[in-house]
Amino acid sequence: MGRLSVRRPVLRITPAGAHRVPDSLAAEEPFELRVGARALAVTMRTPGHDVELAHGFLLTEGVIRAAADVITARYCGSRDDEGRNTYNVLDVALAAGVAPPEPGVERNFYTTSSCGVCGKASLDAVRLASSFRPAADPVRISTRVLAGLPAALRAGQQVFDTTGGLHAAALFTADGQLLVVREDVGRHNAVDKVLGWALLGGRVPLRGSVLMVSGRASFELVQKAVMAGVPVLAAVSAPSSLAVDLAVESGLTLVGFLRGASMNVYAGAERVLVEQAEPARQTPAAPGAGGREPAGQERVG
Amino acid sequence: MGRLSVRRPVLRITPAGAHRVPDSLAAEEPFELRVGARALAVTMRTPGHDVELAHGFLLTEGVIRAAADVITARYCGSRDDEGRNTYNVLDVALAAGVAPPEPGVERNFYTTSSCGVCGKASLDAVRLASSFRPAADPVRISTRVLAGLPAALRAGQQVFDTTGGLHAAALFTADGQLLVVREDVGRHNAVDKVLGWALLGGRVPLRGSVLMVSGRASFELVQKAVMAGVPVLAAVSAPSSLAVDLAVESGLTLVGFLRGASMNVYAGAERVLVEQAEPARQTPAAPGAGGREPAGQERVG
Repeated sequence: MGRLSVRRPVLRITPAGAHRVPDSLAAEEPFELRVGARALAVTMRTPGHDVELAHGFLLTEGVIRAAADVITARYCGSRDDEGRNTYNVLDVALAAGVAPPEPGVERNFYTTSSCGVCGKASLDAVRLASSFRPAADPVRISTRVLAGLPAALRAGQQVFDTTGGLHAAALFTADGQLLVVREDVGRHNAVDKVLGWALLGGRVPLRGSVLMVSGRASFELVQKAVMAGVPVLAAVSAPSSLAVDLAVESGLTLVGFLRGASMNVYAGAERVLVEQAEPARQTPAAPGAGGREPAGQERVG
Repeated sequence: MGRLSVRRPVLRITPAGAHRVPDSLAAEEPFELRVGARALAVTMRTPGHDVELAHGFLLTEGVIRAAADVITARYCGSRDDEGRNTYNVLDVALAAGVAPPEPGVERNFYTTSSCGVCGKASLDAVRLASSFRPAADPVRISTRVLAGLPAALRAGQQVFDTTGGLHAAALFTADGQLLVVREDVGRHNAVDKVLGWALLGGRVPLRGSVLMVSGRASFELVQKAVMAGVPVLAAVSAPSSLAVDLAVESGLTLVGFLRGASMNVYAGAERVLVEQAEPARQTPAAPGAGGREPAGQERVG
């Protein structure tokens, strides 16, 4: 499981006074990923599920497509000052025929030579890199199921209650069954861990599934969902502009501000079944609002 | 100012029904920083204040120490498909005698050859890299002033109210005067922008100041504060374990869960003046709680 939280003394100040108490903090440690003994990336993460993290990262960076693309993933013998293994360096050996990634800035999706660097180039790069097509996934999900996901995610979080300091990501089936939940100080790491879990279990592309995240939906998180073939991404908080653009271009359903029975559908609304008695009103989008409009919603009940 | 928010159509679903409305989203675009025409880093950021962002990034990565270390910072002629400048690529020319950074994984503070990669190595690397000493800053800040910072930060946020999707960072004087506030989809970018603003104004090292962030306090954010000589970092949410460790080692005062008159002081409590009538109670830290204890608090009134 790794070191998910640690205890530290804290001076707690409230209107009632100030006193010293122990506090639980989300554990954070650097993690170095090597491919063929060559350093590829360093991220600050919460220890635990590192093999999943490595698989999810390599999947969503376009390096691997299946669990069989990795032959071995093992901790290096990195030692701290007291001679203990840090378990913070993982070396991955790729299968024959799997091209190793290019380290450095160019590894990212963001840069292309075509237009310096811009949102359009980023969208194109993800589209070209992705082996899977969320757009082709016919899955539907009801607002009733969506409304229950935040509470289910929250209930699956082991460490948040004690530290208040971890992001979480979870995979659900379209009828709301929780498959896996992972917590991490880094939002992208939490997502990589659940996607790596899925890859190791032979579940990628993740057709018919919903990826739920505890915070905001950035371009990077949408990119990861697309790269794993996830058709629906739901977030407790706001998406960014480029996250919505990529979701629209990729045919991903993107739900934001998911709070109980209230939510915003930013893309792929055709997958969302609105389950409520009152008829939906259709008000036109504001003049000048950019982006392709999602298809009309379907309704049940 | 840049493109801080953009409009997109959204399907808004509530128990009262579903209807299409326009929504404002936090703008997100890739940003490529070049030094001497060589790509150093790419980050997803909210456009605007890019020159500050570049200065803050180079300061907190240990490349520059003063505004004079940069001769010019100018947008490259990168064009999108329609021939418009993207304003997403910035090239910085360093002054003579300023060593250019090493691109790639090694650029990060996290890796050292001494122990593979571990928290201890990360702390040592920041300590060695920092030119400034928060520990030597004699500034004091009262809980009354601290209690007012979240509302002042929130009031200074221009875009959050419309999008709900931006991180914010602000600098305050020790008596609570707001100096600058910046918003960004990336928490580290918001901090780099305010620190870059300070560097350009000749205010670094930021003695006597408080850096306030809207979210959590990670190792990276504490690192940035230390590299800019900030003595007090306050966060609305939780710190991570390594953030607290670095604050303790660096002599930085770290306040978390700052919500009105309630807050936790994780390090450097000697700078915090507890302003309330009731005497503080001292309860011992739990057995086995790690880390060096902050010095006892001082009290006023």
